[in-house]
Amino acid sequence: MKLYMTERSGNAYKPRLLLAMLNVPYDKAMLDFPNKEHKKEPFLKLNPRGQVPVLEDGGRVYWGSTAALVYIARKHGGEKWLPTEPAAMAEVMQWLELAQNEIHYGLQWARGVMNKIKTGNLEEYQGYGRTGLSVLEGRLKNNQWLALGRPTIADIACYPYVAVSHEGGQPLDSYPSVAAWVKRIEALPGWVKRV
Amino acid sequence: MKLYMTERSGNAYKPRLLLAMLNVPYDKAMLDFPNKEHKKEPFLKLNPRGQVPVLEDGGRVYWGSTAALVYIARKHGGEKWLPTEPAAMAEVMQWLELAQNEIHYGLQWARGVMNKIKTGNLEEYQGYGRTGLSVLEGRLKNNQWLALGRPTIADIACYPYVAVSHEGGQPLDSYPSVAAWVKRIEALPGWVKRV
Repeated sequence: MKLYMTERSGNAYKPRLLLAMLNVPYDKAMLDFPNKEHKKEPFLKLNPRGQVPVLEDGGRVYWGSTAALVYIARKHGGEKWLPTEPAAMAEVMQWLELAQNEIHYGLQWARGVMNKIKTGNLEEYQGYGRTGLSVLEGRLKNNQWLALGRPTIADIACYPYVAVSHEGGQPLDSYPSVAAWVKRIEALPGWVKRV
Repeated sequence: MKLYMTERSGNAYKPRLLLAMLNVPYDKAMLDFPNKEHKKEPFLKLNPRGQVPVLEDGGRVYWGSTAALVYIARKHGGEKWLPTEPAAMAEVMQWLELAQNEIHYGLQWARGVMNKIKTGNLEEYQGYGRTGLSVLEGRLKNNQWLALGRPTIADIACYPYVAVSHEGGQPLDSYPSVAAWVKRIEALPGWVKRV
């Protein structure tokens, strides 16, 4: 299994975390982010969206953090990290949707603007980010984990950009349950640092 | 099964399409979009994100089009619309990620600005939309369907906002394979009109 990534990418950090927690060995293919290797051939042949991560296994290629998480969870995690029963799978999936929406174009983009790796409307992005954090806080006030009462890929998908949301101007001080959940994830066996 | 929706919502149209194609009966709970019923209590209890669709079944609630599609496909579609084998599921999932990204904050938001239901940077959104359409065109040039050589929830998730992308200033003239795929979806048994 080979993971195309950059060291700092939060989206590539998602499969890296799951692979580490499941203790699955893999090769890292590091892209040259400052030189925009992810926006050029031959990488665009692997992922025409021009983004990391891309996962390669058994001669097949999957782009995007959602596909990577789903593949790893199904192949190596049994029913634990992504169950196949309809209600349980849907419960996990709704949080992957939050990760791809308010957390992505909210928290991630706000951070991108503040870190000067993206242009755009900071206030608009921070507004979406606040919605995302409020939804998480509402859930985590009475739950240890986002879905199914245990760690799943729902937590892995939402965690990376929430953990650095202060870099987008939105510290977790007003979201104490979210802050506690971040610490719970970082205490899980196999957890690794982003950089 | 009950689907909370508005008549015009493209995201609610996704589970509506799948339910129609699978011939599954369900109740429609229509929200008053002009009066922003989806942004107020009691709806926010069902979905704190303040969006449709929400699916209710067996006393449980799932928000978002991804969770709804996954739930319906797993409960009523066997292995056909969303298989559980790792490689096949990941292949489907990468297109659901495109639907939640370039198609959503590209095509859907550009259309939202032009239809005056959203503010924001039209050119930025159209740029993302072009990436999304190019990725689809690249895939569909040599494939009838987005994943697995057959209709899956990958097609259902991407179709609604692609089919109306001209309303966001991006007609499909330059994307002939995408235009042909839209027609193929509309010829599938059980296909229903959005409005």
